[in-house]
Amino acid sequence: MHRWSKLFVPTLREVPSDAEVASHKFLLRAGYVRQLGAGIYSYLFLGQRSVNKIIAIVREEMDLIGQEFLLPALNPAEIWQESGRWTGMGQNMFRLQDRKGAWLALGMTHEEVMTDIARKELRSYKQLPQIWYQIQTKFRDEPRPKSGLLRVRQFLMKDSYSFDIDAAGLDRSFDLHDQVYRKIFTRCGLSFVAVEADSGAMGGSQSQEFMVYTEAGEDLIASCACCGYAANMEKAVSRLAPLQDLAPTGDGQPELVFTPGKGAIADVAEFFHISPAQDVKTVAYMVETKSAKGESVWHPVAAFLRGDHFVNETKLLGLLGGSDLRTMQAEELETWFRGPAGYLGPIGLAPAASLLDGKLNVIVDAALEGRTNMVCGANKLDYHFRNVTPGRDFSWTIAADIRNVAEGEGCPTCGAPLKVAKAVEVGHIFKLGYKYTESMGARVLDPNGKEVTPIMGSYGIGIERILTAAIEQGNDPNGFWLPPSIAPFDVVVTITNVSDAALLAAGEKVAADLEAAGFDVLLDDRNERAGVKFKDADLIGIPYRVNIGKKVAEGKVELVRRASAASEDVEMAGIALALSNAALPA
Amino acid sequence: MHRWSKLFVPTLREVPSDAEVASHKFLLRAGYVRQLGAGIYSYLFLGQRSVNKIIAIVREEMDLIGQEFLLPALNPAEIWQESGRWTGMGQNMFRLQDRKGAWLALGMTHEEVMTDIARKELRSYKQLPQIWYQIQTKFRDEPRPKSGLLRVRQFLMKDSYSFDIDAAGLDRSFDLHDQVYRKIFTRCGLSFVAVEADSGAMGGSQSQEFMVYTEAGEDLIASCACCGYAANMEKAVSRLAPLQDLAPTGDGQPELVFTPGKGAIADVAEFFHISPAQDVKTVAYMVETKSAKGESVWHPVAAFLRGDHFVNETKLLGLLGGSDLRTMQAEELETWFRGPAGYLGPIGLAPAASLLDGKLNVIVDAALEGRTNMVCGANKLDYHFRNVTPGRDFSWTIAADIRNVAEGEGCPTCGAPLKVAKAVEVGHIFKLGYKYTESMGARVLDPNGKEVTPIMGSYGIGIERILTAAIEQGNDPNGFWLPPSIAPFDVVVTITNVSDAALLAAGEKVAADLEAAGFDVLLDDRNERAGVKFKDADLIGIPYRVNIGKKVAEGKVELVRRASAASEDVEMAGIALALSNAALPA
Repeated sequence: MHRWSKLFVPTLREVPSDAEVASHKFLLRAGYVRQLGAGIYSYLFLGQRSVNKIIAIVREEMDLIGQEFLLPALNPAEIWQESGRWTGMGQNMFRLQDRKGAWLALGMTHEEVMTDIARKELRSYKQLPQIWYQIQTKFRDEPRPKSGLLRVRQFLMKDSYSFDIDAAGLDRSFDLHDQVYRKIFTRCGLSFVAVEADSGAMGGSQSQEFMVYTEAGEDLIASCACCGYAANMEKAVSRLAPLQDLAPTGDGQPELVFTPGKGAIADVAEFFHISPAQDVKTVAYMVETKSAKGESVWHPVAAFLRGDHFVNETKLLGLLGGSDLRTMQAEELETWFRGPAGYLGPIGLAPAASLLDGKLNVIVDAALEGRTNMVCGANKLDYHFRNVTPGRDFSWTIAADIRNVAEGEGCPTCGAPLKVAKAVEVGHIFKLGYKYTESMGARVLDPNGKEVTPIMGSYGIGIERILTAAIEQGNDPNGFWLPPSIAPFDVVVTITNVSDAALLAAGEKVAADLEAAGFDVLLDDRNERAGVKFKDADLIGIPYRVNIGKKVAEGKVELVRRASAASEDVEMAGIALALSNAALPA
Repeated sequence: MHRWSKLFVPTLREVPSDAEVASHKFLLRAGYVRQLGAGIYSYLFLGQRSVNKIIAIVREEMDLIGQEFLLPALNPAEIWQESGRWTGMGQNMFRLQDRKGAWLALGMTHEEVMTDIARKELRSYKQLPQIWYQIQTKFRDEPRPKSGLLRVRQFLMKDSYSFDIDAAGLDRSFDLHDQVYRKIFTRCGLSFVAVEADSGAMGGSQSQEFMVYTEAGEDLIASCACCGYAANMEKAVSRLAPLQDLAPTGDGQPELVFTPGKGAIADVAEFFHISPAQDVKTVAYMVETKSAKGESVWHPVAAFLRGDHFVNETKLLGLLGGSDLRTMQAEELETWFRGPAGYLGPIGLAPAASLLDGKLNVIVDAALEGRTNMVCGANKLDYHFRNVTPGRDFSWTIAADIRNVAEGEGCPTCGAPLKVAKAVEVGHIFKLGYKYTESMGARVLDPNGKEVTPIMGSYGIGIERILTAAIEQGNDPNGFWLPPSIAPFDVVVTITNVSDAALLAAGEKVAADLEAAGFDVLLDDRNERAGVKFKDADLIGIPYRVNIGKKVAEGKVELVRRASAASEDVEMAGIALALSNAALPA
């Protein structure tokens, strides 16, 4: 049993001015964390107690499928150079030199170190599969640390890595992680959804995120309530409603039309009396790729899509294998389009024969294929074309899905309308494939005595993310409530007046009884007014409260559920049973 | 229950060539760790399992006296500049710049961060005392990483910090740590000794180390078997046996003697037919101090002591508040002594009136005070003086204890002969005083409403040090045995032949019974020869082994204690009880 009077729980009445999201605000107000610098936080007693409970759950579940390691945060540059990520990670990776001038990285993830161990120690298929995990501090030099604990420069991760002899093995390791992650997030009390995701900088073939819906999230998820389809916007696809193309005008060939001052899609649509969906939108980018030596190369890209659609830049980057992008500047538009912004279009361009061959990469969103008689910019100030039919009037380097799915579009699986909502990522599992084992030279003998490259998976859980997501999931203006499994305490026993010997004794007895029954108990024995104590208790995330007040004279105490504020009078002698019943999942 | 056949335990038959000490050799051979770089190690399954058990013990005990936090490894430079240690830590601190060019340190210790929290959150004596601890990764850019896990660049520490209203409070916090540390090291099965220590770069008044004797240690401990006195050499003092001074010769005044080629003390002693104790030894240093801005200043120091004594450079640095030292070079000897190495002496020097005032700091070891008619170098090639009496014939800036205690000298407490032995430090507790709270401006109101500076203590345990010390403490040429409390498993159940269905079934049953009785069991179910399995079991640190062999037919298995190799046949049905009895402290 812990006594509040002896603890350091620096609660704040004021809402910190820079805290935007609920978790940030309440982690500070409840004395869970304090900020040390940009994206750098100290966990105080309550915060660390919650983190320890999360870690215990993660460890217990991970021990069922893998073996725990602990790898160094300090990584010699050499292994990152071998995998090609020393440059690939760019400015996101903290780097430093030791006293002898040797370069080190602070690990953002540990594919390289794990693969280094695997290549030195694994010799035979008989040693496979292996699943190795750790719970360890990661470092990432975020360009814009923000949102409290959601985007930080140092954080705890459970990361694991699987090594298998073949793709079927990787499927099993991936599925084991999928199952164990679901157990972990369920035990942590999160309402999560597993979604298809882009595998991004990690490489690899299949990737699934575990997301918790919250307005504080930085990801957008498209999901279908009907069939359960769910995907990150970076990966989501949809069925589009059928669309009536325009009838041709005149001879049906592209016709140049004077459209003075109609640079915006809404204006063009109004001018032609068409819907934006009947207009071709042009977005012009410069996309960066990195050479093996880490040098930047910038490529011109013209992206065309429906006027009511939006480019998903992650999809575009994925298509090109790019590391970064920006929109073209005026001179670049002149070079590649010979036209000004607002009036760009696909006609008359010279598309590259293949991607990244030095010419203009013309990329057409798949939703433009098969369309006829559209409107588009003419690469000439104040002019548009009409009667433009993709494929007949212009060609492209590649057609592909490069757009954002929008709310209400059809589910790709069942056709029901998709929902789009913000969410925060708490876990991510990847089929990496051979990227690291191949580049770093891991080899094992297969059953036929032949040398083969093991196939790898990579799996992560953000430990503090679980805490922040849980707070976003359960809060009101007065504070938050954590699921009991990850709350610093199951219950706070509030003695409303410690000067009253009978109340004090009753509080001690109730706390001791609850503790004997296996609950983690915080006894609020502070010499404060009852109102102050209730306010603090409501603030700090503890899911249940037992008030020790005047009804003690009748042998009764009050049991309060933080989430619903529902309360009931309970026989003091039966408090442990009452709390057990209350704490059962509804 | 864990099955060896499914685990990654890469044991090595060969002794790694660069491994000098037992713990290093066996941690590698037993597959506990692998090296990633200089002073950087990965913990594999067995190693991490042991580390987790150590952490659990440390956490359980620390929770009885303090509150767990978790502070960032990334520390903004500013707080280290405030305390003055940004420069004071020199090259031992890893530093890096973030993407915006701001300087960060990787925390070597967390006085600054804890004091930053304290100064922002603590307002009143009512909030004191506080003991805050964490179990966290520390970074230190060791100049010469070596000895496996004993001197590394990244390591786990339990560090705690106390804040009290006054010195009596600090005494209590210090004593609480002393008691809890003794419990922790006892529970971890270490044979440790608590010794007085120098507080060094940490500052502060009282300092105590917890040491485990081992030839692999880098510290020397002077101890008295009679009264229990024990101190690190940096702090140890002794009573010297009475010594007969020489009779004066001639008029008793210093006499210049031609001593050609007698530059070494042994040669001088032989030449004069005296004992080295009757000669004055001269050691000439340049000692570095750091200004508040971190600039180096180098000071000349002449240290004089008995010819049979040796300078303790930590004591010397402590006396001068120095950060580093080196011996004088020839030109510097010429400047300050006007004499050559081998013939240096105290006569004719111009001692500084006070330390570090720019003149020559002449420091005389306390053991020279009161001596008469000694021999010393004459600051002239091939010449010595005799009839030299300190105080009469030369003066000094300060006389102080600057020498190493030697084995056999008298205990300062009881006079019995001291022993000197090597040891490794596993814990250290300090009374810091006001150094950080003052420089960083922490203030609280005392009961009289007056602003006072809280007083601070700092306390550390090296988590991996406990593991390495335990290995040094219990090993033989075949491997090592850990105390059960910190071993990765309590017992390995070795099925001598898994092709024998009866043995396999018996092994499963014994392992299940042991696990049901609360033991942490490793079942060696590998398809290997019994000899290989015994060798591996002996290697990897598990304190007990149960052999499942042919006597199973008679209902018997063999229980082996790793430390003594003592074995006994036990009824299979009674194996749990037999192991419980064996595992009781002798």
